Amino acid sequence: MARPLITLTSDFGIADPSVAVCKGVMLGIVPDARLLDISHEVARHAVAQGAALLWAALPYVPVGVHLAVVDPGVGTDRRPVVLAAGRGDYLVGPDNGLLLLAADRLGGVAKAHLLADAAYRLQEVSRTFHARDVFAPAAAHLAAGIPIEAFGPAIAAESLVRLDMPEPRAAPGVLEASVAMLDAFGSAQLLAELADLETALGPVAPGDTLAIEAADGRLLGGNRSIELRWRLTYGEAATGEPLLCLDSWGRLAVAVNLGNAAAELGLAPDRRLRIRRG
Amino acid sequence: MARPLITLTSDFGIADPSVAVCKGVMLGIVPDARLLDISHEVARHAVAQGAALLWAALPYVPVGVHLAVVDPGVGTDRRPVVLAAGRGDYLVGPDNGLLLLAADRLGGVAKAHLLADAAYRLQEVSRTFHARDVFAPAAAHLAAGIPIEAFGPAIAAESLVRLDMPEPRAAPGVLEASVAMLDAFGSAQLLAELADLETALGPVAPGDTLAIEAADGRLLGGNRSIELRWRLTYGEAATGEPLLCLDSWGRLAVAVNLGNAAAELGLAPDRRLRIRRG
Amino acid sequence: MARPLITLTSDFGIADPSVAVCKGVMLGIVPDARLLDISHEVARHAVAQGAALLWAALPYVPVGVHLAVVDPGVGTDRRPVVLAAGRGDYLVGPDNGLLLLAADRLGGVAKAHLLADAAYRLQEVSRTFHARDVFAPAAAHLAAGIPIEAFGPAIAAESLVRLDMPEPRAAPGVLEASVAMLDAFGSAQLLAELADLETALGPVAPGDTLAIEAADGRLLGGNRSIELRWRLTYGEAATGEPLLCLDSWGRLAVAVNLGNAAAELGLAPDRRLRIRRG
Repeated sequence: MARPLITLTSDFGIADPSVAVCKGVMLGIVPDARLLDISHEVARHAVAQGAALLWAALPYVPVGVHLAVVDPGVGTDRRPVVLAAGRGDYLVGPDNGLLLLAADRLGGVAKAHLLADAAYRLQEVSRTFHARDVFAPAAAHLAAGIPIEAFGPAIAAESLVRLDMPEPRAAPGVLEASVAMLDAFGSAQLLAELADLETALGPVAPGDTLAIEAADGRLLGGNRSIELRWRLTYGEAATGEPLLCLDSWGRLAVAVNLGNAAAELGLAPDRRLRIRRG
Repeated sequence: MARPLITLTSDFGIADPSVAVCKGVMLGIVPDARLLDISHEVARHAVAQGAALLWAALPYVPVGVHLAVVDPGVGTDRRPVVLAAGRGDYLVGPDNGLLLLAADRLGGVAKAHLLADAAYRLQEVSRTFHARDVFAPAAAHLAAGIPIEAFGPAIAAESLVRLDMPEPRAAPGVLEASVAMLDAFGSAQLLAELADLETALGPVAPGDTLAIEAADGRLLGGNRSIELRWRLTYGEAATGEPLLCLDSWGRLAVAVNLGNAAAELGLAPDRRLRIRRG
Repeated sequence: MARPLITLTSDFGIADPSVAVCKGVMLGIVPDARLLDISHEVARHAVAQGAALLWAALPYVPVGVHLAVVDPGVGTDRRPVVLAAGRGDYLVGPDNGLLLLAADRLGGVAKAHLLADAAYRLQEVSRTFHARDVFAPAAAHLAAGIPIEAFGPAIAAESLVRLDMPEPRAAPGVLEASVAMLDAFGSAQLLAELADLETALGPVAPGDTLAIEAADGRLLGGNRSIELRWRLTYGEAATGEPLLCLDSWGRLAVAVNLGNAAAELGLAPDRRLRIRRG
């Protein structure tokens, strides 16, 4: 039988020992766990970015316990929770919207419980580091087989905090969508899919010319409007040429072949763009 | 039975393959080891910072073998050592003060031995990379069950190099203390505990107004003195408000709620502060 | 029996979830794999730097499956391949020169096959993320025991893309060599060994004075020529003193004791240097 799998996602970075300490706590409870870092480089306190990242990553990860902590409200009255998702996973973290997008994608929230029972926390619980004192112990005890009901009272799924994600808006001739996240190469993923684009612009074919501009009228890399082409992959474009393609997560993305779209075009999470035919 | 646990701490960063090579060497000796990175982002050659980090992290990690290398004197006559701590752990690294604070906290130094026996080193030992050639093999052989006595002659614990840590100084009405380390959020941990603060200022309660200034009279983020409040957690302060609290390691820390105290107030390791009532 | 070992090397960084997703895919196929990160901080699209890094690291890692992806041509007609090396390892990645230096060092290419069989890919293969959809599944299936012949047709080893590495050139009195990579401390490894230096300059002894200059005549850290000494290790030089030594990988390296040679002398990968007696 496979050893239990626990994934970790946070905004802790890897310089200070916070992540290691959470892992140490968990290995003390479930010594044979497999620990898989998703990312600890979520921007500080950026709950929506963490949620987008979990949404992208977890469908490719085997069923397991997913510990996620981006928690600007640590020590206040935001609720510590565990969600059971339809696929069989558990998601552990603060009830601030971080977990819910991914839980939806893993089959929806089947059960939600408060992390309340002191038996599944460290003996001393600080006011400032619940990842170590509350969330990591809970994740480890779940991985060790403690049933979700043991952690605390059930919570209605409808009461969980849900993030407002900026929706794409397809009008005849123009798609408006927001940047969700940047990848390692500076490509900017939009919160929109191919169907949204084709609703606005009709069917697109490789090589079609498009144009993007900022919805707020500001310049993109010094230009009012950027011309780019619809491509199936980066290497179909010339070196340094901007393109729009489907990225690896099934979403639209603005990229520059062998370049960095975010840096060159001034794209960042939450920036809202309009896409038309060029 | 749990597989042996080896933790790794260094100033190698994660860009070059140094850490991977140490792990490769260890897996060649003890294939089933669990490897746990504490941090590889200790500032280059910053032995005291590495020691502070081990002090903070290791108490939360299960008993194991702890490999730590911040080693500006590699290839010179500083001694390579292994310490057995009272809790049952082994600490492996250079005798330059890096290991001793953590060993004290894990029950004290029960035994200390030189890493001298060539049987537990790589066949070729470079002059520049003892982490790979001396320390990693020793850690792996310890994890595989080789007794500490086999590695080389015993060393008197009193002869081990001990770092001078800047002590807190509590006088009536003023506590003086030095910054130990910064966490991922820019909070500055002081080498002082609540008892030190209350010795200087009497009992403190949430909301009490305090003031900090630099002991050398220089400005802190442009100000002679910073007013802040004693808080139990970050979220009790307004956004952007500075605060003093107990951090997750039981030490005093200067933080800014949803901000970055180090950047905003110009705090850095070794900076010495004075704290008074405001 | 030891669990299968899979190493990972890429230019993905650790901020976005790309590496985690590749690991998730592999754990879905071979749940008990040991996963060892070599580095994910290869400079974006820097195939030669990735090749140098694998060359340095893999000889210290136990026999296993080595997944390496620095793949500016993803989605174009560059071939996805698996190489079997003489030592017993498998190397999986794009046929763009990334794998071949390391394969040479692990005993040479014994077999090479195309990754063609859809049974060993994800069901949906994107045009932009073959690490996840093609290479990670192949690495995992190899680790699970699928024979190399099952993945696709054999490829002639001579047909594999080989990088042009800038060779050292030893003339009487002068060695010319190129920077291969920088380590975490800013030391610059040259693509040259001690034998090359001694061919040019005769036997060198610790303390011998040497001088380096840029082959293109440009300044090095503001100077036409830098005087340095041949040293066995960093600590033999005074603080801040530049030196030439054999680095931990058996190559010549320019370093500054307790300093950063790359930053202080303006060294970077591919910079070509001339070394003479000073």
